[in-house]
Amino acid sequence: MEEHKRAQLLHKDRQYVWHPFTQMKDYENQDHLLIEKAEGIHLYGADGRTYMDTVSSWWVNVHGHGHPRIKQAIQEQMERMDHVMFSGLTHEPAIVLAEKLVERTPEGLTRVFYSDNGSTAVEVALKMSYQYWQHQGHKTKHKFIYLQGSYHGDTLGAVSVGGVDLYHAIFKPLLFSAYQAPSPAISGMEQSLEAIEDLMKRHQSEIAGIVIEPLIQAAGGMHIYGADFLTRLRALCNTYEIHLIADEVATGFGRTGKMFACEYAGMTPDLICLSKGLTAGVMPLSATLCTEEIYQSFYDDYETLKTFFHGHSFTGNPLACAVGIESLNIFEDDNLLGHVQEVSAYMQQQFRRFADLEHVDHIRGLGMVAALNLVKDKDRQEAYDPVKRAGYQIYKQGLEEGLILRPLGDTIYYWLPLCTTKEQVDTIIARTSSVIEKVTAKL
Amino acid sequence: MEEHKRAQLLHKDRQYVWHPFTQMKDYENQDHLLIEKAEGIHLYGADGRTYMDTVSSWWVNVHGHGHPRIKQAIQEQMERMDHVMFSGLTHEPAIVLAEKLVERTPEGLTRVFYSDNGSTAVEVALKMSYQYWQHQGHKTKHKFIYLQGSYHGDTLGAVSVGGVDLYHAIFKPLLFSAYQAPSPAISGMEQSLEAIEDLMKRHQSEIAGIVIEPLIQAAGGMHIYGADFLTRLRALCNTYEIHLIADEVATGFGRTGKMFACEYAGMTPDLICLSKGLTAGVMPLSATLCTEEIYQSFYDDYETLKTFFHGHSFTGNPLACAVGIESLNIFEDDNLLGHVQEVSAYMQQQFRRFADLEHVDHIRGLGMVAALNLVKDKDRQEAYDPVKRAGYQIYKQGLEEGLILRPLGDTIYYWLPLCTTKEQVDTIIARTSSVIEKVTAKL
Repeated sequence: MEEHKRAQLLHKDRQYVWHPFTQMKDYENQDHLLIEKAEGIHLYGADGRTYMDTVSSWWVNVHGHGHPRIKQAIQEQMERMDHVMFSGLTHEPAIVLAEKLVERTPEGLTRVFYSDNGSTAVEVALKMSYQYWQHQGHKTKHKFIYLQGSYHGDTLGAVSVGGVDLYHAIFKPLLFSAYQAPSPAISGMEQSLEAIEDLMKRHQSEIAGIVIEPLIQAAGGMHIYGADFLTRLRALCNTYEIHLIADEVATGFGRTGKMFACEYAGMTPDLICLSKGLTAGVMPLSATLCTEEIYQSFYDDYETLKTFFHGHSFTGNPLACAVGIESLNIFEDDNLLGHVQEVSAYMQQQFRRFADLEHVDHIRGLGMVAALNLVKDKDRQEAYDPVKRAGYQIYKQGLEEGLILRPLGDTIYYWLPLCTTKEQVDTIIARTSSVIEKVTAKL
Repeated sequence: MEEHKRAQLLHKDRQYVWHPFTQMKDYENQDHLLIEKAEGIHLYGADGRTYMDTVSSWWVNVHGHGHPRIKQAIQEQMERMDHVMFSGLTHEPAIVLAEKLVERTPEGLTRVFYSDNGSTAVEVALKMSYQYWQHQGHKTKHKFIYLQGSYHGDTLGAVSVGGVDLYHAIFKPLLFSAYQAPSPAISGMEQSLEAIEDLMKRHQSEIAGIVIEPLIQAAGGMHIYGADFLTRLRALCNTYEIHLIADEVATGFGRTGKMFACEYAGMTPDLICLSKGLTAGVMPLSATLCTEEIYQSFYDDYETLKTFFHGHSFTGNPLACAVGIESLNIFEDDNLLGHVQEVSAYMQQQFRRFADLEHVDHIRGLGMVAALNLVKDKDRQEAYDPVKRAGYQIYKQGLEEGLILRPLGDTIYYWLPLCTTKEQVDTIIARTSSVIEKVTAKL
């Protein structure tokens, strides 16, 4: 891109655009990085430089950017039909994708309700769970349990079950009341399960469901916990008749090494929320799947007013569904989970080498996800002063070295596209190593 | 489509798909209408029949389906870049669209925050308004006023400011508390403004904003009111220092005859919510625009924690933004608002002819929108028994006559694509006339 055009666009960005999750003043004396092309795991800056997308563009990208088969699928769908409403009408892409999702998700999830993003997928699950209990005559069941450090989206229903104070605390007066339980990843599995059972026992008559991120509490700081927790939580939910809502928006579609994280526990939730990887990271779409029991509780004569009155204009968008179908086809045709198994094992092994660095602690990982914490003093477990914004320095230095890194606080992580190769892992590891050393030397 | 394939798809639809705003049991003994192609204002059924899309596929479609320039824009954008995250990074489609939106929306709205659908656009507005007052030290301002009969979306924050009991009442325990005011369209302008002023006067210290659908309360029953209300509401909001949030998700982008409904009053809201027509009805995207004053209250050193912590994975999706830009280009190049002026005047005139029908009452309209109520007895103002589901019968008979009509209760309406021609209006009017006569004869 010509320098004049680049400068002009960046000027307009500053003049008109409010970026998400961003203190805009951070960009008072620096520009946002202007990207003009994306291919494979690479983003091409208007500055002529190339960057490796180690966070899959906010955890969404699956097959790399601009996959030829995805391009083709969009073009073919556009020739037939852009969009029609999904009430009264139906169409092949939404039907076929629904069938594939029911087949691929844990057994027992039989019905697909589409919406547009992770937040709405969670809102749909919360509302379905709540309304189910209303239909059953359990009128007082309108509370939910969520975990400390959890993140389920930014609409106010989703924020109500969010456990990250930095994001959520300020909105308290607008939230519904919910119960927070300790996280298995932060407080330990036993303590978490004990507290959850205690809540369920004491408040069974008012609790509709518990909502969790299976295995990885991502936005809260890449906290990872074991599959046993899921097995035992499923048992508790059965005992106390409480819905288990699995938010697999981030973990779904192969990122953890299995298609869905719940599979590590052979566990079927009552409701599952999907987005991000659902369209291989190309465009917005989400889905909430539920059990037949939940679906049937809404299925009745119109006059009983059991309809689920929820819907978004672009529900089941044919373009997005066509992309979703083609993405699942690529999973199969390329044996993508086999590739993930091999590359992720290699990546996790290489990642562990960071443990040798002076200011790196708490290495963890699962599938294509790996994380570490930067610390001032490893032996004393002393964190950096927050005003140093160590993670933010890493982000800036990453750009210098051709890496898109997007730390959460002082947690540096990878959330790699599933198509990443071993050679690319080597490059990413080498560059990250250099970034960490340079930044920590100056902190 | 082959009959075998059609039957198979419809079987799978019934097996896997939960449609929005739909009592699925209504389809126990009938199929959803399977659409396989869409072009212009026509939808092509897998049954070989053609249907006119009189509701613009839930009020989204602008230029007709499959517009060649929109197709081209998607294809070109796909060649460059499918999607990248919008935090830390930026790209030309989102910047250019933001500039165009600031230029086109009422003067004084300077900043664009993207999200994915109307519900999230409203949630963003509510959260921005609330957080603005927190920054100003008005810690108790966390309530909103909404109008009776209003609809602002289905996420729980948006439901909290919804005034349609059928959709919203059941979720009460999950909603934040808000003040309902009478609607100018239902209770009359003076009564509405008096009640609003009374609320503002009594609760000024706790009210952050009032959220409205300018001129048309759409989902609540196509209630239409005059622009004076907007002018006087703006004055009240100024007097009592309360944000005016205009939800133009449905009314925006030419549907009312002007680009935005607020223009009828020459009024600038503090926040405006856009979606649906933003992408010409092709794929999900929404935007919330705000005044410079609101934006600046968040703009500060990171440590002050004034960041707006909100974002969705596909924020500023490049494909959707490219479509949005091309749609606005078509508005200009085709003088689309000129076309709308001409066709809508003709349509409103023709529509008034329905007043002669025995069971039709309360004809109203604005721009490409027109509505009427079916009544059992016009003189006595007697409605049909709800169990007759008159509107639902209209929907079914509409399909027989090649029309997609989607009544709200017993309110039949048009929400026509802006590209509709006078000849198409004639056909739609003639068919609707036949539908109404056939259905009311049997009721």
